[in-house]
Amino acid sequence: MTTLAELGEREIIEQFRRLLPADSSVIVGPGDDCAIVRPATDNNFEWALTSDAVIENTHFTAETDAVGIGHKLAARCLSDLAAAGAEPMWALINISAPPSMDADRLKAVYRATADTAAKYGLSIVGGDTSSSNALALHMFAVGRLPRGSAMLRSGASPNDVVYVTGELGGSLAGRHLVFVPRVREGIWLRSQAWTSSAIDVSDGLECDLRNLIDVNRNGVRIELGSIPVSASARSCENGRSATEHALCDGEDYELLFTVPEEKADKFEKAWRSAFEVKVSRIGTVTGQAGSIDYVDTDGSIVNIRNKGYEHFRS
Amino acid sequence: MTTLAELGEREIIEQFRRLLPADSSVIVGPGDDCAIVRPATDNNFEWALTSDAVIENTHFTAETDAVGIGHKLAARCLSDLAAAGAEPMWALINISAPPSMDADRLKAVYRATADTAAKYGLSIVGGDTSSSNALALHMFAVGRLPRGSAMLRSGASPNDVVYVTGELGGSLAGRHLVFVPRVREGIWLRSQAWTSSAIDVSDGLECDLRNLIDVNRNGVRIELGSIPVSASARSCENGRSATEHALCDGEDYELLFTVPEEKADKFEKAWRSAFEVKVSRIGTVTGQAGSIDYVDTDGSIVNIRNKGYEHFRS
Repeated sequence: MTTLAELGEREIIEQFRRLLPADSSVIVGPGDDCAIVRPATDNNFEWALTSDAVIENTHFTAETDAVGIGHKLAARCLSDLAAAGAEPMWALINISAPPSMDADRLKAVYRATADTAAKYGLSIVGGDTSSSNALALHMFAVGRLPRGSAMLRSGASPNDVVYVTGELGGSLAGRHLVFVPRVREGIWLRSQAWTSSAIDVSDGLECDLRNLIDVNRNGVRIELGSIPVSASARSCENGRSATEHALCDGEDYELLFTVPEEKADKFEKAWRSAFEVKVSRIGTVTGQAGSIDYVDTDGSIVNIRNKGYEHFRS
Repeated sequence: MTTLAELGEREIIEQFRRLLPADSSVIVGPGDDCAIVRPATDNNFEWALTSDAVIENTHFTAETDAVGIGHKLAARCLSDLAAAGAEPMWALINISAPPSMDADRLKAVYRATADTAAKYGLSIVGGDTSSSNALALHMFAVGRLPRGSAMLRSGASPNDVVYVTGELGGSLAGRHLVFVPRVREGIWLRSQAWTSSAIDVSDGLECDLRNLIDVNRNGVRIELGSIPVSASARSCENGRSATEHALCDGEDYELLFTVPEEKADKFEKAWRSAFEVKVSRIGTVTGQAGSIDYVDTDGSIVNIRNKGYEHFRS
């Protein structure tokens, strides 16, 4: 018997994907932040579909603040929609919970989800409830996009400039429960067509860089000194450097994207006049397939080993 | 502290519903088999959104056949789409599983879900995987409907005839893992505009009759001798009659619907020429708000107490 832990999440998803037949209405299937589907009856728009979960003892504990849990459920889905540049539309929530659970706590979770969803124009329209041993919440969200405009993980070319919003690392100290999904920024990036590729940083910067650049064709060169390191990454006292935390922690939910080199200066100016949240130029896509090079402030190449977070693996 | 068990699923859902703001693109929100949403940009179609879950130790056990679990996941969502008369389009699957789980078993579950989905034209386009203590699968499905045509739970009037497809009761003996979702039948009922209201029987006939008729306005009179009782309901040996099983067991996933009296004969003829699965005329909607009368074969009124299945309650 092979366990899920031995196989790992990536391989399991790859094996699942091979079981699915093709469908011409599916523009982007499993593997991106959202699936992109196109109804034959709508000449103007297509739809971004995404789902996420927050599960007790995996994403939070019985002691975690209810408002944080509920916010995170909605904000994770909103972050996926943001990565595609989609406008939030409708969502369903599935809840499974132990019958002995305090109803007021569950209601506080649900209210926080509803509040965060409403803030970004996402209407909760239904869902399912059932009994289980531990609290688990699943959200399914639909976003809207003009046809053919979705930002995807694929699309980066050598010499494209790599950007990331906000600050990275140390999210588990608290930010993972209160983070701001970059919905406005994602819609703006998509509608102004700045990007050649985009993803939200959920598994950790290094891991999501690999998801972003097509590792069969491209590599990436990252300037370590340019990575925006959060204050909480700097205050982790566990022997790892703040930069390592920013590279490997995950749960940042910032946007990571590439902009063609010739647009980069204009893009930075436009961003600064549109948003207060900072955007950092952290590196460049290269033609060296599969290679991630970290360049230290003195110009030397640094080797950092990390695989980011992968479910099922311990 | 009030627990979920004390409050009950119906009251919890009602309290959740009050937390949600209105949205003009939402034609039908929480409380029906599907939510119905209408994109402003599509003049022809609207969308049915639904979600269901199958959870270890709630809907199945570690001994349950993998193919049955996977089939049930897809078929429950398909049954919801059928109740609205929607054409299955796209779905996402969220999986949470223990890292120690046999990967081949999970793959067999997923393959069965994919097979059942494909059989009814439902394309699986993505989802999410994460770790948890016990296996849980959630499916979110999108169906398509011509604008304004969705079959809803509301809409029945006094004198409408009540019908149910197939046979009821004893589903937990095995049928709940292999049932046929009435997708073709639901699309046909909707496209031919036969019904005044419709639901799928998931909580049990009596319970779903209450969900179907507007209990604030209507009642229903059911001829006990006309209820189609399954062979497995008849072979349950636990002191309850086969009719009680057919009324109360749940997990039948048959369509329960009303047809205006003047169309009823024509409808029955049309059904018989379209489908092999039987449809049974089991009663009539009445004007007696909130009253469900069961009429025995000798014409006497029978009182049967049951509340159907409600999650969280023991």
